[in-house]
Amino acid sequence: MGKLDLRLYLVADMQADHSHDALFHQVIAAVVGGVTVVQLRAKNLSGRPFYELALALKQRLDVLSVPLIINDRLDIAMAVDAAGVHVGQDDLPVPVIRRLWAPDKIVGVSTHSVAEAKTAVAQQADYLGAGAMFATSTKDNTTALALRDLTAIVAAAPIPVVAIGGINADNAAVVMTSGCAGVAVSSAVMGADDARAAALAIKRSLLV
Amino acid sequence: MGKLDLRLYLVADMQADHSHDALFHQVIAAVVGGVTVVQLRAKNLSGRPFYELALALKQRLDVLSVPLIINDRLDIAMAVDAAGVHVGQDDLPVPVIRRLWAPDKIVGVSTHSVAEAKTAVAQQADYLGAGAMFATSTKDNTTALALRDLTAIVAAAPIPVVAIGGINADNAAVVMTSGCAGVAVSSAVMGADDARAAALAIKRSLLV
Repeated sequence: MGKLDLRLYLVADMQADHSHDALFHQVIAAVVGGVTVVQLRAKNLSGRPFYELALALKQRLDVLSVPLIINDRLDIAMAVDAAGVHVGQDDLPVPVIRRLWAPDKIVGVSTHSVAEAKTAVAQQADYLGAGAMFATSTKDNTTALALRDLTAIVAAAPIPVVAIGGINADNAAVVMTSGCAGVAVSSAVMGADDARAAALAIKRSLLV
Repeated sequence: MGKLDLRLYLVADMQADHSHDALFHQVIAAVVGGVTVVQLRAKNLSGRPFYELALALKQRLDVLSVPLIINDRLDIAMAVDAAGVHVGQDDLPVPVIRRLWAPDKIVGVSTHSVAEAKTAVAQQADYLGAGAMFATSTKDNTTALALRDLTAIVAAAPIPVVAIGGINADNAAVVMTSGCAGVAVSSAVMGADDARAAALAIKRSLLV
């Protein structure tokens, strides 16, 4: 998958009441603040608006040389020639994605245990998401993962692991002690009045 | 797209409270009763359960030489090597589908007016759905299409048109006077105690 920089991974969650421009504004500010990769998540959008949003976001991110990962919908990821797709345990299986899409495309998998991590690794995932680390408002179907569980996943996986779920500038450094490759952030940045400053604060905390 | 028989087109709508076995039972009975093509629709299923359901249904339909069309999700259609995909006005655009999938695959488009029909034809759709003809419990966002509107769509489209929406054994013959290639049925068959008999009654009414 080349040298994907997973240190500060932004999950941009498109809600029905968001405008495209508001989303682009937050994402671009976050990239200026140090976000290294962007995932677009739009569980409530139909195929056409998701496609149009993803295409417009990718055009903006291409200029900034930041890769775009599409959540769940392989067809949307293929349609906009995204850098990759990120799937959960309830989405298309990784072997199916590998069969349908180009071999150089990134496939990330959400995991919640060492067992899920080992399965994803065996299926040739490129990186793992692991969480949720802390309570989060973005997803309501998650249970918290202890730091020792994250550390066990990192130890079991020979591929990069990105910690996710309620991560912010106050807790990111502790999460990084697991040996994970980076942290995924969502509401801490997307919901910030100043997304650039919010991303920058988290990025700096990773370097401590 | 070869010689697709659209005369009696079954839309199998997978609801969250259905079992796979119940769906397979109704679909297979309907095929025995004369259904010529099956579309699987599962708006509320995530990628993996939709994929698994589609794969299992396709295995059953392959034995019966009946083509399977997947509603909306191009990635699921590609993953199970379905005969085609059916998209609405809010799903992936037809040119995007044509670019991503093999040229011999069927692409159907839901239309509600002559203008939408002409656009879909220009974009190389293989067939059109047109409706809803009558009130239906399957979809709640539809307005009824008059028979003269359907006739106008059929006249404007050089590709086959399938009428859809509340069609049953009592009204199918009237709908066919539009010159459409066939009728799509859903609850009239899927909800029947005897799906074979229900499909057979509609199929016979088409021949009158």
